[in-house]
Order: sequence, then C-alpha cells, then structure tokens
Amino acid sequence: MRTKLFILSSLISFTFLAQAQEISNGVMKLDELRKPAYREIINIPEVNGYQVLKCDFHTHTVFSDGLVWPNIRAQEAWEEGLDAMALTEHIEYHPHKDYVEVNHNRSHELIENLSKRNNVLLIKGTEITRQTPPGHFNAIFIGDASSYIEDNVSEKDWEAVMKAAEQNAFIFWNHPGWKPNIEGSYEWLPFLEDLRKKNALHGIEVINGFGFHMKALDWCVDKGLTVMGTSDIHNLVGHDYDRSRKYVHRTMTLVMAKERTPESIREALDAGRTVAWASKYLAGKEENVKNLFNACVKLLPSHYSQEKNGVRTNFYEIQNKSDLYFELELTSGKGTQKITLYPMSSQLLSAEAGQQSLSYDVTNAYVRSDKFLNISFSL
Amino acid sequence: MRTKLFILSSLISFTFLAQAQEISNGVMKLDELRKPAYREIINIPEVNGYQVLKCDFHTHTVFSDGLVWPNIRAQEAWEEGLDAMALTEHIEYHPHKDYVEVNHNRSHELIENLSKRNNVLLIKGTEITRQTPPGHFNAIFIGDASSYIEDNVSEKDWEAVMKAAEQNAFIFWNHPGWKPNIEGSYEWLPFLEDLRKKNALHGIEVINGFGFHMKALDWCVDKGLTVMGTSDIHNLVGHDYDRSRKYVHRTMTLVMAKERTPESIREALDAGRTVAWASKYLAGKEENVKNLFNACVKLLPSHYSQEKNGVRTNFYEIQNKSDLYFELELTSGKGTQKITLYPMSSQLLSAEAGQQSLSYDVTNAYVRSDKFLNISFSL
Amino acid sequence: MRTKLFILSSLISFTFLAQAQEISNGVMKLDELRKPAYREIINIPEVNGYQVLKCDFHTHTVFSDGLVWPNIRAQEAWEEGLDAMALTEHIEYHPHKDYVEVNHNRSHELIENLSKRNNVLLIKGTEITRQTPPGHFNAIFIGDASSYIEDNVSEKDWEAVMKAAEQNAFIFWNHPGWKPNIEGSYEWLPFLEDLRKKNALHGIEVINGFGFHMKALDWCVDKGLTVMGTSDIHNLVGHDYDRSRKYVHRTMTLVMAKERTPESIREALDAGRTVAWASKYLAGKEENVKNLFNACVKLLPSHYSQEKNGVRTNFYEIQNKSDLYFELELTSGKGTQKITLYPMSSQLLSAEAGQQSLSYDVTNAYVRSDKFLNISFSL
Amino acid sequence: MRTKLFILSSLISFTFLAQAQEISNGVMKLDELRKPAYREIINIPEVNGYQVLKCDFHTHTVFSDGLVWPNIRAQEAWEEGLDAMALTEHIEYHPHKDYVEVNHNRSHELIENLSKRNNVLLIKGTEITRQTPPGHFNAIFIGDASSYIEDNVSEKDWEAVMKAAEQNAFIFWNHPGWKPNIEGSYEWLPFLEDLRKKNALHGIEVINGFGFHMKALDWCVDKGLTVMGTSDIHNLVGHDYDRSRKYVHRTMTLVMAKERTPESIREALDAGRTVAWASKYLAGKEENVKNLFNACVKLLPSHYSQEKNGVRTNFYEIQNKSDLYFELELTSGKGTQKITLYPMSSQLLSAEAGQQSLSYDVTNAYVRSDKFLNISFSL
Repeated sequence: MRTKLFILSSLISFTFLAQAQEISNGVMKLDELRKPAYREIINIPEVNGYQVLKCDFHTHTVFSDGLVWPNIRAQEAWEEGLDAMALTEHIEYHPHKDYVEVNHNRSHELIENLSKRNNVLLIKGTEITRQTPPGHFNAIFIGDASSYIEDNVSEKDWEAVMKAAEQNAFIFWNHPGWKPNIEGSYEWLPFLEDLRKKNALHGIEVINGFGFHMKALDWCVDKGLTVMGTSDIHNLVGHDYDRSRKYVHRTMTLVMAKERTPESIREALDAGRTVAWASKYLAGKEENVKNLFNACVKLLPSHYSQEKNGVRTNFYEIQNKSDLYFELELTSGKGTQKITLYPMSSQLLSAEAGQQSLSYDVTNAYVRSDKFLNISFSL
Repeated sequence: MRTKLFILSSLISFTFLAQAQEISNGVMKLDELRKPAYREIINIPEVNGYQVLKCDFHTHTVFSDGLVWPNIRAQEAWEEGLDAMALTEHIEYHPHKDYVEVNHNRSHELIENLSKRNNVLLIKGTEITRQTPPGHFNAIFIGDASSYIEDNVSEKDWEAVMKAAEQNAFIFWNHPGWKPNIEGSYEWLPFLEDLRKKNALHGIEVINGFGFHMKALDWCVDKGLTVMGTSDIHNLVGHDYDRSRKYVHRTMTLVMAKERTPESIREALDAGRTVAWASKYLAGKEENVKNLFNACVKLLPSHYSQEKNGVRTNFYEIQNKSDLYFELELTSGKGTQKITLYPMSSQLLSAEAGQQSLSYDVTNAYVRSDKFLNISFSL
Repeated sequence: MRTKLFILSSLISFTFLAQAQEISNGVMKLDELRKPAYREIINIPEVNGYQVLKCDFHTHTVFSDGLVWPNIRAQEAWEEGLDAMALTEHIEYHPHKDYVEVNHNRSHELIENLSKRNNVLLIKGTEITRQTPPGHFNAIFIGDASSYIEDNVSEKDWEAVMKAAEQNAFIFWNHPGWKPNIEGSYEWLPFLEDLRKKNALHGIEVINGFGFHMKALDWCVDKGLTVMGTSDIHNLVGHDYDRSRKYVHRTMTLVMAKERTPESIREALDAGRTVAWASKYLAGKEENVKNLFNACVKLLPSHYSQEKNGVRTNFYEIQNKSDLYFELELTSGKGTQKITLYPMSSQLLSAEAGQQSLSYDVTNAYVRSDKFLNISFSL
Repeated sequence: MRTKLFILSSLISFTFLAQAQEISNGVMKLDELRKPAYREIINIPEVNGYQVLKCDFHTHTVFSDGLVWPNIRAQEAWEEGLDAMALTEHIEYHPHKDYVEVNHNRSHELIENLSKRNNVLLIKGTEITRQTPPGHFNAIFIGDASSYIEDNVSEKDWEAVMKAAEQNAFIFWNHPGWKPNIEGSYEWLPFLEDLRKKNALHGIEVINGFGFHMKALDWCVDKGLTVMGTSDIHNLVGHDYDRSRKYVHRTMTLVMAKERTPESIREALDAGRTVAWASKYLAGKEENVKNLFNACVKLLPSHYSQEKNGVRTNFYEIQNKSDLYFELELTSGKGTQKITLYPMSSQLLSAEAGQQSLSYDVTNAYVRSDKFLNISFSL
C-alpha cells in the first residue's frame, strides 16, 4: 500500500520525531494546538431495561440573563454527552433587554436545527420567575411562550404558572430555599399544594448547580413529585465545573426512559423515574437510586481466601462499571469498612468467612434528607 | 489557638469550605494529597462472546535488569486494569548479580500471593536471551526455571529454547529487528522455521513497547503464529508512558478468551485470538482486528437529514463504546472524509443520501505491514 | 440519621478522611465540585528591562459574530493572565442584528468597569471588515466607533481604514491569505503600500488563531511593520484551545513594554517590540525573538565531566525559566543534537570538551518564513 | 532554507493532520506515546539573598525496605526538580536480606555518578532504626556506614546514634509519635535531651510524608532544633502522591542556602534556615516561614476604586509568584475575608478605603502547632 518512509498518523514525542506540519498556500496550520472535538459518552448501564438519559432542563443564554449565545449551550450539550436539554429563559427578567430582543421563543428557535443535527433532544422550556416565595418554576414541554405573564406581581403568580399548565407542560419548582432568610421561602406553602392538586406542579429541583436542597427530597418522596437535578447554568459549564476531574459533570437529571425520545422522557418524568446527579452526589427516591446502584455496581464471586490467627477472610472484587461515583460505609457484618468506587474502576473488598451478607450505606447517595441508600451484598 | 479535632483547611474549593482535616494523637493526616488508589477498568466490550483480556507477558524486575521490586509490577498491573501478567526475567543476563540473588523463579514466587489477592492472573514466564540473531524468546506457562541454560553461546541456542518447549510453554520471538544493522537479525531464519516446525515457536512480538516490528505482523499472518504486544517494561510504566492522556496505556496483548482463567488464555493464545495494542495502534490478523472493531464501534440509524443545492445529506452518530482509539479515512462512497474516534465518545458522520454503504480504512489498525483494516458501514 | 451540621463525605482522599460538607439552612453546598477561580500568571522574565505583556487585540462577542456576552471575554482574559485585550467587533458584519443591537461601541462599554476592577487593560478596538482583497484590518486605540463605514463596497475601502487613522489608531492587516484562491488576497498590494506610506498601516497579523501566515512575517521584517499574534476568538478560548496541555495558551502578542500601561503598550507597538506567540510557536523580528529567548533560557556552567574512549564530554544544565516552549537542533559543534525545553524545566546538554561554543536552530521560533532563530552558547 | 511542503515539529490535532511517523528499518517508532522527559523547575524566589533548595533527606530503596532500585530514586529526584537528596537505608532492618546484599553504603554508591551527571546533590545518609521509643533517627552527611550498629536492642541506642555523631553527621529524629499508643513515643524524653546536649541531635521531622507531627514543631521552636520535612518514600513518588494536581509535590525540606552546594546546605541546616513543605502545608520557625511568604507573595498598589452606599472600596491584585500554595483568612481590618493563592497566580483583594493595613492568618502555614503565620499588608 505504501512504500514511503513516512506514514500518516501520529502524536507527541518526548524526543524529536520527524513530524509534519502542513503548510498550505503559505499558511501553516497549527491545528495540533486545538482541543479535540468529540461527543463524550457518559457510561451508565441500562437499569431494568430502561435507558438512563442524561438531561439538563434548566439553562440560560443571553436571551435572559445568561452569558452565551444559544449555540454555545448546544455545543456544550453535545460535547458533554447530554441526551436532552432545555433552554429556560426567564419570562419576567431580562437584564440585557436594552441590547437583546425580548422574545420568549427565540433562543430555542435558534438552535432547533443544530440540536437535531447533533442528535441532542431539545425540549422547549421556560423559567417562570416569580418573587420569592413562591419563587421560580421551570416549565418544559411547553408550546408558544409569547403570551406568558411578564409582570411578576404576586397577584399574578397563579395565573403565571397556569399558563404552562394549560400547555400541558411538565412543571417543577426551582431551588427551594435558595435565598436564605426569606419567610416562607423554604416551606411547603398552600400555593404549592394547590398547584400540585391542580396537576400544575410535577417535580422539584432537589439539586440546582452546587446547591443540594435537602428538604425538597423529602417533599418529593412524601408528595409523589419527581426529583430533578439541573445546572441552572448562566456562565460556561467549563468555567463553573472542574471538568478536569473525571467524576465532575454538570448537575443533571438521570431519566430512566424506555426510549431516547421526548415522549419517553415525558413519560418517565411523569412516572417519577429520575435521580438527581451532581458529580459525586446522587439524590432520589429509594427505588430509583437502588436500581441505578445495582445496575452499576457488582460484587464478583470471591477469588481468594486467606487464614490468619484462625480467622478466614474472603476477598472479592467490587466493580463499578459506570461513570458514577460511590462511597460505601459498612453498616452490618464484618468486612472492609469503607470503599470509594471511582468511575469505571474496582476495589478489593474483604469479608470474614461464614457470613451471609454485608450491608453498606452509600454515603453519597441520598434517599431522604437524612437517609443514605443502604445496600446489601450477598456473600 | 484551636483545641478542636477538626480544623479549617480547604481542598479543591475555590472558595472556603468548612473541611475537616483529621488530627489524631497530635498528628495531622494529610491524606488528601495522596493519589487515589483503585483498579481501573479498561472498557472493551465482549467480542462474539469472548472476553477481551488485557495481558502483558513481558516485564522485568531487579531480579534481572529491571529497576523495581516485583511488588511494583503487581501494583502497576492491578491499578492499570490488567487481567494477566508475566514476570519474564532474563535467564542469561543479570547485571545486578553482585547485589541481588540470581534465581530464575524468585520474582514470580515473591508476588504469587499478592497477585492472587489482587485478582490478577500471574502467568509464570521467563526471557531466553540469546545473542542476536536469533535474539530473545519469551516463554510463558513455564514450570521450574532453575535448570534453564544460562550460557548464551550460539551452540546452545536450540537447547535453550527447547527447555521451554519441554515444559509445554507458549513461546514467542521477541522484538525482531530490535538491533539495527545486524545481519540476519530481522529475517525469518531457518532456526526460527525449525522451532516452528517442532512446535517450539508460537508467536512473535509485533509490538514491543514503543516499537512496532512491522515485518513480524506479516510473518504471523503468513505462518500462522500468534500476534503479541508487550511492554517489556524495565523502568516504571508511569515513567515511560504518558498516562495523562486518556488513550495511553502500556503496550499489551488483547486476548479474546472464553473465560478469565489461565487455561482460557492459553487456549486463546494457541488459537491465535489476539490483537497487539499500543495505545493508538492496533495490529493483528484481519479477522481478529475486524471483530474487535465491530464490537466497539456502532453506526446508529440516521437521525437527521438536510437538503442543500439539490443534494440530500443524511446524518448519523458513530459511537465508540470502548477505551480503544480509532481513526477512519474514507475509501469509497460520499461521506465524511476523516473521523477520529476517541475512547468512549462519538462523532457525527454525514453521507450523501441514496448510497448503500461507505467504506473506511481504519488507519491506526494494521492487518499487514502495508494494509489497514478496511470496514464498511451499511447506510 | 444525622443531626450534625458537618457530615462525612470524602473529596480526593483515597482513604476516608473526616471532611466537612457545609449544610446551611437545609441546603448542602457542593462547592468542592467547582473549578478553582484565579488569575494565572504566565511566567516570562523581563527582557532587557522591558516587561513582557501578554496581549490579545482581536476578539469578538455577540455584538458582531462572536458567541459570548462581553463579560465572558473579560473573564477569560483575567483567568488566562492577559495584561491587555481589545474587543474588535466587525463594523460591516452583524449576523445577529435581528436580535442584538448594532452599536460599534457597546461591547467595549459593557466591560470597561469590570476590566478596570480586574486589572486588565481594555484597549478600544474594532475590525474594519472589507472584501478580500484587501480584507480585514484591526484598529486599536480608537475613539468613538459610531461613525465608521458600514458599507463594505470596495470604493469605500480607503475611507474605511482612514476613519481609524484619523483617530490615531494603531492599525494592522488581519490574517493575509486567509481565504485561499482569491487573486491578490495574499500579496502586498499597492493599497497596502499606500496605507503604509500614509501611516495608516502599522502591523500585520502573522499568527491568527491556528493559522501562521508566513509571508506576513517577511513583510513585517522587510517593511518595518509590527508583528502581531491574535486569537480572533469567536467561540470559547477553552473550547478551541487544548488548555489541558501546559504549553497551550490562546495565540497572542507578546509586547515588550516599559510599563504595564496603555501608553507603554502603544509605544512598544509603534516601536515594533513584539513577538507573535502561538503556544509552541514564536514569530518575530530576529532581535526581538533573540532577546526573548535569551531572557528565558540559560546554560549553566558545566557541572560534570566524563572521559570515554579518550574523548572528554562536559555536561551542562540548560534551563528554561519561562512558560514558553523551545525546541533546539544543533547546527554547529559537537554536542546534544536535539533538545526540547518544556515550560519551566531544564534538560541536560552534553558537549565535547575543548570547544568554544555550540550553535542551535530554535526550530519553533521563526525570524523569517524560511529561517529559524539561531543561537550560540559559549561553553 | 526549506522549500518542502512538510516541515519538522508539531503535535496533536483534533482533525487529521498529515503527520509523519518514522519507520526505520521496518520498525515504526511509537515515541509519541512516551511521557515527555524533563527536569521540572519548582519555582520559588530567592529569600533575602538565599536560594531556596528543594531537599529530601529520607528515602529508601530495595537495599533496605524500599521497592525500587536506587536509579529510580535518582530519576525521580531529577524529574521532580530536587536540588539535593539522600538515600537513607535502615541500618537495622533488611526485609529483602535473603535476596539483596546487606551493605549500608551500596545504594548510595550505585547512584553517585548518575547524580553528579544529573546535577542533583547526593548527600550520604542512613536511617538509624531503633525500637520506639526513642524510634528512628536519620543521619546525613555521614561517612562510611559499614560499622554502624545493626543490633537494635535498647542498650545500644545511645551508641548507635553516636556512630553518626562521631562522623559529624547532621542528625534528626524521625516522625515522632508515628506509632500511636506507645508510651513515651511522642514525648521529649531525657534520651533526646541528652543527645541534643551532646550535639548529637540537630533536627526533627515535623512532616514525614502525609503525617504532620505537630508537637515536633513546638519542640523545634522551643529547643532550637531544625525543622525537617521528608517523603520517607518506599513506593514510587508518583504512586503515593497525586502529582496530577499542580500543587502536589513529595514532602520535602526547603533549605535557604547561600549556594547550591553540600556545604551551604549543611550550613543552612545547622543554622536552622528551613521550612518543611508538604504540598499545601508549610511548617517552620516564624522567621523562616514569614521570609518565605514575603518572597513569594506581593500586594500590588491599588489599581481601582469604587464607591457604593458612601463606602469607598479599593481593589488590589495579590500575586503569588511561586509554586507554593497559600490560604489567607482575615484577622484584622475590613477587606476580603478569605483568599486562596494557587501556584503562580493572583487574586483580587478589596479593602475599605482609609485603613493603614489588613492582617491575615496564613491558614496553611504553621509556626507552632497551634499558631498560623500572621502577616500584615500595608495599604
């Protein structure tokens, strides 16, 4: 095929390689300095036949108070391996309005084709931005946003949210308690209960960016609402999050869906099959978090055994075949006290022979504000 | 100033978190500075029902001319996610002999239990280190190495290799042509042919560390020998290889085995089901490389289509669900010319509508010294 | 389960540390996941009493065809350690004009205070965007941009550039030859010569982003124009450049200035004391590149000597005390053939005893399109 | 010089570059996969005319209980930018003695020439390894170690240490309190006081690897002993320390010496001009730590001022021009509460106008077990 001394393809050398830098028409291309461009695959196995879709339904652009043109959000979503995203501009808040058109549909429209081409599901959304309390609500799967209520006087709070309900949107309450020391801002007010009863409130942001709103998890569990995690990104994802660490991703919602379609996502959201994921932290209903854990982590059969001072110890490999991160702490049985499972890695676990099982708290996985997921390994 | 057990001291936070640094008995633990310890999982899917085992059957310790105690090799293998390893000390060469015992079994013995505990398969091996030509041979699955021939005069070359054959070892010729400008050093000598006929030569190192011995690939293909890749590591893996790049691993042999056992590895080696893997480079028999590629890379159904100037273009996502790396270059059809598939990532591929298929050379995957793997995607 | 304010949850430790995650008012702060925020210091020593200022005078925002709000450019400049920056929106090109105000002063105005607070010198600029040829010109140190010529018919090319000259701007020709195959686009046209004679052209972009326009270097040298390097960034710096590699920065101009002030920068630009810097590549007038090299790289006195086969070899440490990168290749004398000097590092250099000096080409530093900087070390 | 289309020198591309991979004599060189090899320069400015030398005087090899051949220690020292190192094998403890020669001078001898060639100062040392208490002592600047006392019965403790004193060694007590719960193991015993009085004890390891022995700092301050920091490395530095984080280095002693010579190091150790450095932590006598801090960190003159609600705030840039890491916490005055100074970076500091100064605790720099360095910035 080739008889030449030099062939195509290569990379960095610590010593001097003969490397070719292309000069075309008197311009030398320095493309070697570019960041490689690709779509990362976030590796999470199927959970009981459901695909685990990576979704961020709370983001902003210059069309409300974000700092980027919509294309950057599309680009970030593609590169970071998101399956679905929504741009959720504030209806009531437009600090750039002297320079940028106020149009509640615009940012979505501008990246519709780009998102389709990129195979990222773009879900139409908005942020209904009321005074606190009750605060902000995201509505996704909305229709035309042009007639939503811009005036954020409290008299219109109900009507404002109802605009979304009328469009059959999926509506969730954002970052409860985000502003400290405002009376009623972190309470389950009658307004919320009324929304819920009218089928105009379906979920709560349990984790918003770098804030884990712990009470919200309990409300979701107790009132049958869907657990949401979002980035609420205004700046760049790569600026806010330390993406140089393998386990750090933007905060998002893991949605266990039958298919990778908007309809399946909606079905899963309505059914509450979600876990909020903030890099090292997971929060969700016990069943969902447990199923997710069990899909990712396996204890292999014991591969080695040794006896010391009359006590026999069996050794196991515990594998985390996902890009999630887990910390385990022994709660019953005699075995390794603490285990950190980094993404796509395994650890050794040892257990005294003769036991049926070991139980661990997964101390980075919350199923209530005051309760970790507890799992048991059969030995 | 402080009498508390926990004191303030930040880790990774850009602002100050209240983080606790443990002080125990007057000693503050700075374990936050340690490198996380875990066993990496190298992600390669099953290939037609075979597990793809990551094996390095050529390594050295202080017991020949390596620079580390055997435990370091066991530790590296565990951390880097190897399934199997052999320590292959030189029989005939012991530069440290004034300070370190000369014992051909010792380094293996010293880490047998550690390797079992770590769930790494330790295969007993040695390097029969003859003058060039014919040069060096590795023998693995050997028995007692104490009676191997230390004298490396050429008269004893045949007997030296036969010691391994008598133990029913798997024997491969190392780095052919490694010393330039020695007559006969990079040729298929009668000595080699004779060994092969006597069933005393089963494979060749096609890639040794950073050297891809291209002629060896052709010999393997033409003579039915097994393709091997090894690190031949003497220094530290982390010193020689730029492990900060996601796709860089030590050079190794990918063995397609029925089970993760020594017996299955031997069966696969005997059957020639291997691919030599050097981070960005793959070399092997066409069938093996093709099966491996097909297990890792999938072209999804077209998700988008657009028309421009009367030409319809379909868009596809091409996914690499492995930790391997591939570069594709179009050889027939109208579509994306060049695609780099980084580990665990995908790219967009576009193709003119109305075609049945596209063909690509995988320009980092060699099936002969002068031939890339060529693959075809049905559209 | 827990009522304490501090809970256990490990960060980087491989074993479990007692680390505290702050929970305040029922919200757990996950700030450990944030990217650390600081202003990087790019380390380049003074050059003959001049400070080496890091400047990027070609950038875009949503106010022309960029993809970010101006604040992002200010943020990037601060974090990346730039001393000075200009936003240079196109006068004649506004693809976002249906959604964003067309105002040639606006983006600059919006970050004036922020830049002052950040101690980044914001130089007012614009891009005069004519058809090719002659193509685009950047003007910096401009006044009010509201009356510049938006109509880019060629009849108005002269007047368009003269608007800047009237404001006593520093004017440089952008990326000559950037569009291939346009007649006259990569030639020194009379139009350019006329501008130069009228003192309306002071420099040329020798490196624009990832394109090194090699002819432009010769023109600068031959015609006494200032060598410029710029990013011409439209997307995110962190998206386009592979900042994970220590030596990769955005392309910029190194300005050797008496002080860190706009006035000193202007004086240095007028005097031509610049080097274009594209991560691994340097381009500039020989005197400037040589002075820069000599300020960064030192050969220490020989620290060791050894004799072998009657030949005495002296060993030296060669230090690069800068964040620049250099590659050296021996051109005369007997010594180490090739040396790579990574940022803030040293290498060993050996030389046969009895020589007065060694000469090297600095093969990443261009002083003409076809000439590397050549330096000599006294032994 | 060149007329070819391809020129030498280059690197990674995200798209396909024509890159040349050298094939020589039928062997393709994959050196692009190698880790770049260079000597890192740890950047710490001179302190009042003294050079700050990076020294590790406590390391092990296979000649006691370490896991590497001595060359690896020489290699690590060179790459990590150490100025001086000692191999300090245990006199009394040789777990590899069945396989490796017991010779107290050997490991040092084996790398003497290599260290000279590498320009790393190799100081001869040993570890006198007595039962706890009193425990272990390192002696450096020793002579022949062949006659040291191997029998570690307590009756010979005094004589064992005196062997080193007779050779005029610099002697320091290692990791006091390292074994918890042994009576007298973390106390200033008469044995130690007697050694000190006989000029046979000159320093204490305040930080050993990942253990900060806080009481030892007080003893150094109160009794006029020299503060030492060491790695006590047995495994690989790159295995134990998370070197992927910019501020993580092995634990070492910063020695403020007049020159980069063994004699100057000895003079500085005798004079107590040291700071123990463990990546993010510093410990030393107040004068030394303060001088070091002041050499690294500068508050620039205020560059910006703004008034809000009748309060004028001045902004300053605070620069850390070193590879050290500092955390500051305000102790008096009105200004920024907390500042993290990463290596080679700066931050903004704001202060209410009209004040003379601000004071900060440097909360990662200990001058006693219960006292941080406190510094004051004039405004």
